[in-house]
Amino acid sequence: MNQLLKEIRHNPLLWLLAFVPVVLAAAKLKPEAHTLLFISSILAIVPLAALLSHATESVAAKTGDAVGGLLNATLGNLTELIIALAALQAGQYILVKASVAGAIVTNSLFMLGASFFLGGLKQHVQEYNSVSARLQAGLLFLATIALLIPSSIAKADPAAGAVITRKLSVGLALLLIVAYGLGMLYSLKTHRELFGSADHGEAGEAPWPMSLALATLAGVTILVALVSEVFVESVQKAAETFGMTPAFVGFIVVALVGGAAEMASAFSAARKNRLDLSVGIALGSATQIALFVAPVLVLLSYVIGPTPMDLQFWPGAVVMIFIATMTAVLVTNSGRSTWFVGVLVMMVYLIFAMTLYVLPPRAQ
Amino acid sequence: MNQLLKEIRHNPLLWLLAFVPVVLAAAKLKPEAHTLLFISSILAIVPLAALLSHATESVAAKTGDAVGGLLNATLGNLTELIIALAALQAGQYILVKASVAGAIVTNSLFMLGASFFLGGLKQHVQEYNSVSARLQAGLLFLATIALLIPSSIAKADPAAGAVITRKLSVGLALLLIVAYGLGMLYSLKTHRELFGSADHGEAGEAPWPMSLALATLAGVTILVALVSEVFVESVQKAAETFGMTPAFVGFIVVALVGGAAEMASAFSAARKNRLDLSVGIALGSATQIALFVAPVLVLLSYVIGPTPMDLQFWPGAVVMIFIATMTAVLVTNSGRSTWFVGVLVMMVYLIFAMTLYVLPPRAQ
Amino acid sequence: MNQLLKEIRHNPLLWLLAFVPVVLAAAKLKPEAHTLLFISSILAIVPLAALLSHATESVAAKTGDAVGGLLNATLGNLTELIIALAALQAGQYILVKASVAGAIVTNSLFMLGASFFLGGLKQHVQEYNSVSARLQAGLLFLATIALLIPSSIAKADPAAGAVITRKLSVGLALLLIVAYGLGMLYSLKTHRELFGSADHGEAGEAPWPMSLALATLAGVTILVALVSEVFVESVQKAAETFGMTPAFVGFIVVALVGGAAEMASAFSAARKNRLDLSVGIALGSATQIALFVAPVLVLLSYVIGPTPMDLQFWPGAVVMIFIATMTAVLVTNSGRSTWFVGVLVMMVYLIFAMTLYVLPPRAQ
Repeated sequence: MNQLLKEIRHNPLLWLLAFVPVVLAAAKLKPEAHTLLFISSILAIVPLAALLSHATESVAAKTGDAVGGLLNATLGNLTELIIALAALQAGQYILVKASVAGAIVTNSLFMLGASFFLGGLKQHVQEYNSVSARLQAGLLFLATIALLIPSSIAKADPAAGAVITRKLSVGLALLLIVAYGLGMLYSLKTHRELFGSADHGEAGEAPWPMSLALATLAGVTILVALVSEVFVESVQKAAETFGMTPAFVGFIVVALVGGAAEMASAFSAARKNRLDLSVGIALGSATQIALFVAPVLVLLSYVIGPTPMDLQFWPGAVVMIFIATMTAVLVTNSGRSTWFVGVLVMMVYLIFAMTLYVLPPRAQ
Repeated sequence: MNQLLKEIRHNPLLWLLAFVPVVLAAAKLKPEAHTLLFISSILAIVPLAALLSHATESVAAKTGDAVGGLLNATLGNLTELIIALAALQAGQYILVKASVAGAIVTNSLFMLGASFFLGGLKQHVQEYNSVSARLQAGLLFLATIALLIPSSIAKADPAAGAVITRKLSVGLALLLIVAYGLGMLYSLKTHRELFGSADHGEAGEAPWPMSLALATLAGVTILVALVSEVFVESVQKAAETFGMTPAFVGFIVVALVGGAAEMASAFSAARKNRLDLSVGIALGSATQIALFVAPVLVLLSYVIGPTPMDLQFWPGAVVMIFIATMTAVLVTNSGRSTWFVGVLVMMVYLIFAMTLYVLPPRAQ
Repeated sequence: MNQLLKEIRHNPLLWLLAFVPVVLAAAKLKPEAHTLLFISSILAIVPLAALLSHATESVAAKTGDAVGGLLNATLGNLTELIIALAALQAGQYILVKASVAGAIVTNSLFMLGASFFLGGLKQHVQEYNSVSARLQAGLLFLATIALLIPSSIAKADPAAGAVITRKLSVGLALLLIVAYGLGMLYSLKTHRELFGSADHGEAGEAPWPMSLALATLAGVTILVALVSEVFVESVQKAAETFGMTPAFVGFIVVALVGGAAEMASAFSAARKNRLDLSVGIALGSATQIALFVAPVLVLLSYVIGPTPMDLQFWPGAVVMIFIATMTAVLVTNSGRSTWFVGVLVMMVYLIFAMTLYVLPPRAQ
């Protein structure tokens, strides 16, 4: 507990924790103050995400690579998962899908591109293990196809009703989860020697003792759940106030908020010339969302959602995920990066953000 | 003849030849027993395909690489060609196109992926000549564009009538055949030294004497033609009985049946760590179908079909061929493979198969 | 001046300058002789483009790499820019966009492919600096996305009116110009050592003295502008006479005419085994048009056009640019080329040309 307080004192990002009680109080007292709730819930989620990420890594550091990898997969994107679950329960499937697609695109373009850029400002040319990057890119490619094929084939026959789409979505969800599991088996067990340079330690922070990590995990998860509920309820109305389209909010704002903590780790690693770690966080996170979080949400929608959710995204989202994957595939091919590679990748993201920003409100 | 009988005794796959007379008799006696005819014609085609493939290789082994390559091109996919011709003559253009597209997709995904997977179970990492794989992938890419451009440009103007599409299809068919011919000139003549490790011999089977090979070729071709006719006539009705969509039958069932023999060779070579041969069979076969069989079918439709056939595929098929080609391009880039690469490639195929399986009957 | 006359005497291409007065006279005397004006204006533009290109290089050779690069960017595609400006002022936005898209496709496929082919006829295997080719391909990829995303997202919501499309187009135009500028900063300043082998000198022609170069630049620019006006006015009517579709004229004829001079340089360099120069001209020119000429035309349309022009191309053009970019990306990956690589790339171009040629007149 002392260690936790000491960490909070030394990490200014964690001072934002003060917003957690503010949000929860405001949600009770002023439920109609959407803009206030929106902004303060964003400010509260960021430090909670940082704590969650640190606690997860501390548990993973203790349990060894194999179990740790699984834990990381299950818990690494916990913020995104909880936000999505809150939206899922509210039946806001458009927001769920936008935040899933946005997280994939934001992680594989913005987080990757900014890591390359920030690393490239310090180092002339940076090298990283392209085998690992290619595995992640390959998994992303598979997930993209799982999103692309149903919607492009369904287009040929719009009569292919919702029942079929749902049946197919469940099958694809299971396939993606299996692929994700086999990918871990491959990189952590059968061919782990190819995935070297994984000089763990995650940005140099010392791991917490197990008891503190588990307690933090439990406590923070509950807080994130509570704050996320406020965020999801306020986001659409607040966005209108700011003149943002719902697509922009779901894709860009939610994804940047949900990924704040991972981005901090990825950027710091890039500046320390540990680009393997940055690429691992950025692409690993995108892969987790595409092959684990999204499929799990589809399956969970049968249990907790008002109606089953399918894997069919609106065509624009599929195109963006496809482009993001192609960019990641092409860029990670060489295993070398410079500042300009980072600029190119971020500009692809900027094109998406600009397009979503000017899109009229109904366009989802 | 003795040698043929000896081979039949030693190769259990060839015992299925017993189904050849069964099919032909049943087709005469019980023409309405679609399910029976469907199953027994599949069981009869598999051993015939194996014999055909062996006879072709024996002829090729005698005539040397240059002529042998041409023969292989002309005869290698003879089963697929005969099945397609039977469907062409019956005016079943949807089945023709589905089986062409299915053969391309099945060879470049399932056959390639399963070869990587089976080889990877025995060998930790396998290397193969990526120059050869890249040539095949490049040719496939060209064929994909030839299918993609007309249909995507025609979409912009549906008024572009059938006449124009047909004129264009003939031009594209000729272009693809020329590209295929130049590709053979390149790999067999001008730059053959780049395509090394072609330690021919095809899975270790001893070649037959010329007379036996030619006699088998003639006899089996006639049998395949007769059985294929039964197969094409029964497939649609039988598929309904099994609850399979026509798209699934054309893409998956026909392609797996038609490629059975080549798959046996490719998988056996992969397990013997002769991955160059596996990749050559898988991608070479896909290339042959895309750049030789399909164009020849278009041209032949002017002679033997009830109306001319064009090269325009339904959008879902074009997307699948495009994805299959992209997968082959990305996967063969490095010239190395492991079991997990095989899993990824097969999963792309599984996504296609699942989607086609749940598609409603009308969706072609 | 003497030097200019000497050059004209020695370069048979420049004898075509005799057509310049012919065109200008004919345009006054016989404004309705569209076919005559069309052919003679093409014949007049080719030598003017050659002079312009030589003058630009002479200026660039004097000012050093950094300024020279900027000059090359601004002036290298001057012919295309002037033709496009003439069409822009006439409000012929379809022709403007077709010529922009056509120039990108023609440079990155025909000019690149023919360079590979011609070089490959002399040399068995040619190597070139793939870092430079990959930078150009990366920039092209970015530009393709800037064209692709708006039109694919707009399709999801056709109500997204012209106002939004225009707002987005201005933003994307600025983004592309910035990306182009940063790309020059990267290749000419911060990482110039990666872009070696740039043994400038452009096909061995001696640079002109500064005064002659600047005078030629000014004089020829005016002549090109005058002749281009005639060309733009006559092209559509003349095309009908020849039975060519407007799409074919805009994509193929205008692009080949506009790029004639650069092609001469690129092909001659390829035959001299200076493939770095050929690839640089072909892809550099495509990149300039996509990231500099096209965005500048969008911005200029607010000043000189009858109405603002957007960046939205017809779907067929976007698909062609996308395919051309993918081809360039895949082909330049290895940094090696042979004659067959050139054939493959040219055949992709031929597929485009054939499709556009048979397209009915209305299909834009």
